[in-house]
Parts: sequence; C-alpha cells; structure tokens
Amino acid sequence: MTAAEEERLARATISIVTEPGDVRCLGLTRELGGVRFLEVLREQPDLRPEFAAAAGRLATVQPERVLETSARRGIRFVVPGDDEWPSALDDLAGAGVLHARGEVPVGLWVRGPLRIDRLGPAVAVVGSRSSTAYGDQMAGDLAAALGAAGRTVVSGAAYGVDYAAHRGAVSADAHTVAVLACGVDRAYPLAHRQMLDHLGEHQAVVSEAPPGAAPFRIRFLARNRIIAALTRGTVVVEAALRSGALNTASWADRLHRTVMGVPGPVVSAASEGVHELIRAGGAALVTSGADVLELLGAPGENLLDVRRAPDDSRDRLSVRARQVLDAVPVSSPAPTESVAVVAGLGAEEVERLLGGLAVDGHVERLPAGWRLPAAMRSTIDR
Amino acid sequence: MTAAEEERLARATISIVTEPGDVRCLGLTRELGGVRFLEVLREQPDLRPEFAAAAGRLATVQPERVLETSARRGIRFVVPGDDEWPSALDDLAGAGVLHARGEVPVGLWVRGPLRIDRLGPAVAVVGSRSSTAYGDQMAGDLAAALGAAGRTVVSGAAYGVDYAAHRGAVSADAHTVAVLACGVDRAYPLAHRQMLDHLGEHQAVVSEAPPGAAPFRIRFLARNRIIAALTRGTVVVEAALRSGALNTASWADRLHRTVMGVPGPVVSAASEGVHELIRAGGAALVTSGADVLELLGAPGENLLDVRRAPDDSRDRLSVRARQVLDAVPVSSPAPTESVAVVAGLGAEEVERLLGGLAVDGHVERLPAGWRLPAAMRSTIDR
Repeated sequence: MTAAEEERLARATISIVTEPGDVRCLGLTRELGGVRFLEVLREQPDLRPEFAAAAGRLATVQPERVLETSARRGIRFVVPGDDEWPSALDDLAGAGVLHARGEVPVGLWVRGPLRIDRLGPAVAVVGSRSSTAYGDQMAGDLAAALGAAGRTVVSGAAYGVDYAAHRGAVSADAHTVAVLACGVDRAYPLAHRQMLDHLGEHQAVVSEAPPGAAPFRIRFLARNRIIAALTRGTVVVEAALRSGALNTASWADRLHRTVMGVPGPVVSAASEGVHELIRAGGAALVTSGADVLELLGAPGENLLDVRRAPDDSRDRLSVRARQVLDAVPVSSPAPTESVAVVAGLGAEEVERLLGGLAVDGHVERLPAGWRLPAAMRSTIDR
Repeated sequence: MTAAEEERLARATISIVTEPGDVRCLGLTRELGGVRFLEVLREQPDLRPEFAAAAGRLATVQPERVLETSARRGIRFVVPGDDEWPSALDDLAGAGVLHARGEVPVGLWVRGPLRIDRLGPAVAVVGSRSSTAYGDQMAGDLAAALGAAGRTVVSGAAYGVDYAAHRGAVSADAHTVAVLACGVDRAYPLAHRQMLDHLGEHQAVVSEAPPGAAPFRIRFLARNRIIAALTRGTVVVEAALRSGALNTASWADRLHRTVMGVPGPVVSAASEGVHELIRAGGAALVTSGADVLELLGAPGENLLDVRRAPDDSRDRLSVRARQVLDAVPVSSPAPTESVAVVAGLGAEEVERLLGGLAVDGHVERLPAGWRLPAAMRSTIDR
C-alpha cells in the first residue's frame, strides 16, 4: 500500500466513525494527517471526551469494504492531495471552532462523472423547501441563466428551491451538483430518487457523510458549509425566518463568499428571511442571473449597464423648450401668442422654440396654430 | 405696509411670474430677499436671459388680488420668516444648481388646517401611478402604520401609490399632506377632487406653484424636491425604471434624507425601479412601518428586535444530545442499545443523554424502549 493509499484508507475510516463537521476530529486530521490522527484515536481514545465514541466504533467498521463496495457502485472518495480535491474546501480550515460544525472535511464521497475540482466559479442556489410557485420559478430561471453563462450550480436535494435550481440548470444543459447530508447512495427525500439518479449519472452528487449515512438533522448544518465552500457565492431565493438556507448564507459570509438574495412580495412569509438578510446588509439584492454574474465576476468583468427605461427625447430638451412644449395644446391647435401666454414667455422666443420643437417632431404646425402630433399625445406625466 | 407684508407680496409676485424650482430666480431671492430681487427684475430685466420672461410678466400680474382671492378661499402663502415656515425647506439652499430645478421655494401656498411647520419627523410615501394591487396594499399599510406611530405622511396626489398612502394615513386618523405640481385650488387628476377637498379641509394641500397653475410636466420635477425636503425619509413603494418617485428618492438622497424601498416580486415591472435602487445601494430595504421607524429614529430609538422564528428548544441541546435525539425512532420504540448504535455513541452515554431528553419532553420511554412523543414528531428538518 502506498502512503497515499494508506492516507485515503485512514480518512475513509475517520469519515465512517466520526460525524460530518466534527470540528475537533476534522481539525486534528487536517493538522496531523489521517494516518496519524487514527493512531491517536486508537492509542489514546480517552485523550478527549469527543474521541471515545469514534474510537469505540473503530473495531466495528470495515473501511476497506466500504471503499470497495462504493467503487463498485461508482462512488469515489476524494481526499486532500488528490487531483480532484477542490482547493476551495481548504478555506474551511479553522472555520467553525465556535460553532457546532465546521472545518475541512476529511474527504468527500462523490457519485457522478463531474470532477469536483473543475466546477469553475460555481454558484450556490439555495432556499426554502416550502417554496412558492414564485420561488420555484425564480430559482429555475436563475439557475438556467447561470448555467447558460457557463456557471456550475450547487444546491442540496430538498423539495422546493433546491429541486427547481437543479432542474433549471439541467434545462440549460449546464453543470449542477447536489450536496447531500446523507450518503450519496441514498435518496432523501425519496421522491427525488429519479433526480438524484440523473445527477449521479450525468453530474455529481457529493457528501461528506459515508455511503449509507442517514439524513440526520445536524448533518444538514455540516452539509451547508460544503455548499458554501464549493462556490463563489450563494443566492438565497426564498427563505422563511428560520431556514437552512440562511445557515448556508451565513457560512458563505464567514468564508468571504458573496451572499445574494432574491426579493419577493413582502406579504409572502417565504421571502421574510431573504428580506431580513438584505435589510441587515447581509446580502446583496439580485433580480436576475446577470445581477449574480456582475457580483461574482472579477472587478470590471460582467458589468451591467445601469438599467433605465428607453430614452425619452423630451428629456434632452432645455427647460425653456419643455416649458413651451408643456403649453402646447394636445389636440385643438393654438396660435403662437396663446402658447406664449400659457408658457409665460415672450412670443418671439416661443416662436423660435416652437420651430425647433417642430423639427424634432415634438409639435406640429397647422393653419390654426400648434398642437401635439398624435404620437406625442401621451397623458401629462410627472 | 410692514416690511414683512412687503416681502410677502414680493415673494407672491415672484411665485406668480417665475416657474417653480427656477434655480436662478429662487437662489437670488434667497440671497437678496424678495423685495430686492423684484427690484433687480424690474430694473435690469436683461441682466440674465432667464429673467426676461419673468420680467415681462410683471406688468400683467396682480399679486395683491391673488393673495386676497386665495385668502378668501382658505389658501395662505407661507414664506421664510413666518412662524409656519418649515425650516427643513432651507436645506434646499444651493441645491439643484446642476439640475433643471432646485433651490428653496420663495414660499408655499397652503390649503388646510394642518400647520406645515409642525409636521414632526414626517415620512414621504411615494411610488408609481400605475401601481399594482400589491403596491396599493403596501402603500396603504405602510402609511397607516406610520400614521399610527404619530408620523405625518407626505405624498403627491396621483393615482396609485400616492392615493393609497393618503387613504392609509386617513384610515389611521393620522396627518397626511399632499404636495401638488399645480395650484392647490386645482384637482389633478380630476378623479381625486374629493380626496383633495378632504385633505384641504382636514389636513394640508401644499404647492410651490400659485393658485390656478396648471400641472405642467416640469412642475412635477420641482414638486418632488419639496416632498423630499419636507420629510425625514422617502419610501418608494413601487416604481418602474422610469418613475417620478425615483426622482423624489434622488432628491431625498441629495438632501441627506433616508431613502427606503419596498421590494416586490422580481417578475413585476412595477417593482423594477425599487429593486434597482436597493441593488445599487441607493435605498434601504424596508418591509413594514416598523422598519421605516427604525431607520428614521434617532440612534438607538425604535430599534427592532432581530426577527427570528420562534425558538426551537432543540437548538439549545448539545451536539451529542442532538445526535442521540436524531437516532430515536419516530413511532416504534427502540431500546437504548439500538439508539446507541444508530447514534454511533456508547450505550452508557446514550442512556444518560436519553434520560435528560426525556425530562425536557424531547423523547418518551415506553416498556419497549424510546421514541419521540407525538408533539415532537415533526418531519426531519435541515
């Protein structure tokens, strides 16, 4: 067995006996290496209270078999040092010491042909499981737009926004990655088996938890940091005030990724968490894939034009010309003198300004005087 | 005639012969006083090209009569130096030199019992004339909430958001002020005559333009600066990319007032201008009257609690207790040993943790083992 093989086996073992995101065990593995940390676990199981449970499980697990069975089922275990290891995950080093979960995972279990070191500047699209039709539409449109621009989409596999995001990316023939809280061989929720199989066959399904692991509640919190770390930015589409998506957003913020939020109707509880995030300055407001690309591009890249309505040629008139234009009747023509009285300007100046306005099509001259041409008869606007 | 009466008459004259927001004439009136500026206008009508028109009208106007007729109709002309002059308007001094309109008005024509120097920390609620039902609801709710908190609402008199804002304020028995682009004796749009009469009788209708003045397009741009200046902050409820409300917002910003925007569905064109404003950092996102009050209060005043969902007692559990809780079956009870296996922890520790969980009602012990109590059987959540 080469040293690399030995390290992979050690890390598989650690992945199987510890909980995803266990800050102490993962931090020590990162510092000492998997082989050395496993020795510590075997030789000094009582060194820290956190080690006892993991050490106790060592005797009962068969990591070689898990790796073999996984490989037969098309599941690989990617560890630091592998070509496929995404260096972005190393940003998690030291992260989470004050939190329940954190740190660089010892490895990731991956199912599917997409290489996770080649996701490019990926974007997480996350949000509520109980999304509205509006949220689903926004998530799908956003993912499709990002996908069409060559960005990989990353999300979970839950109902609602996660599902809509993957579907949007797939519809744009784009890359999309599902990061699970359970083993990549499991379908949770069960209704998404078909989607997960599709992603496992054409894209990538990823988990820090080993094959067979159940979708325990705390594993979602650990999982969220992987979604944040793998991407350049996280877009929250809909999120209630209490939402896992906000946990992902807070991981993205801690990892110096860009946090973005899609607004929605204020009356919709599904948007409350997003509004609160934007309100508190925790997220930039985005309304389209183009907005996201602008925020995630390198400085000066993907800059958007300032959005404005089509130019109104009246905007380019001088104040006095507009004053005259305002005084021109809409349909019954009026002579220059009465336009001048209404405008409060001298008749000579008004005559000159009306001439200029007629050249540009703002007014028309009839035998009886001046009026607006049919095309210009919009209602008086502020 | 006292000096004050003479100055009021001079300013009424200037108000009648110049356009609202004429930067040059208004700036000189502010610097020289109305009496002196009127002398300049009479003696040197050709001093600046802008003066000619105003000077030409001097011979034809009858300011004494306008003041008299107005007074008979319950319209007063408030000028700097009057007790009723709102000092907030003086913030407009020098503002607008680079713009089509600007500066401190020479006076304001007011109809209605509300004193405009006693509006308190008022809030402008502005937005689209072609608002959606959502926008009308938001404007009305917001104005009612601000009114209930003792704030005066200020808006225009247009269809849509303006109308909804006044209606909301009136429904909360609050003060509300309409600032017009035409004379305060005119109803524009005509459909709002009843509302304007109501405000003129119980509140205040205000204009920089003299009675009889028509609602010319450029007068709306001048009017918007009055709305911004009279208030502590401007809330834009719905606004297309091209909207007078955004002009009011930009005046509020220039005058160092707080600019706020209410988000809406991204798919709604009526919210595009607001989203663009928030996106570009030009406005704070607000979703309620409480948000507005927090932003407009003095530092530390009206602070909102951070909005969060009701506390979940499971959040306070240690990671290991949650690990055990996750391993407890929902309905068919399981013995301690199998909970321990699923949790990956030692049986002794699990027994102890289960005891604690049972005390807090997270799990229940049956003869056959442990399971979740009925009340706790929510689905697995992230």
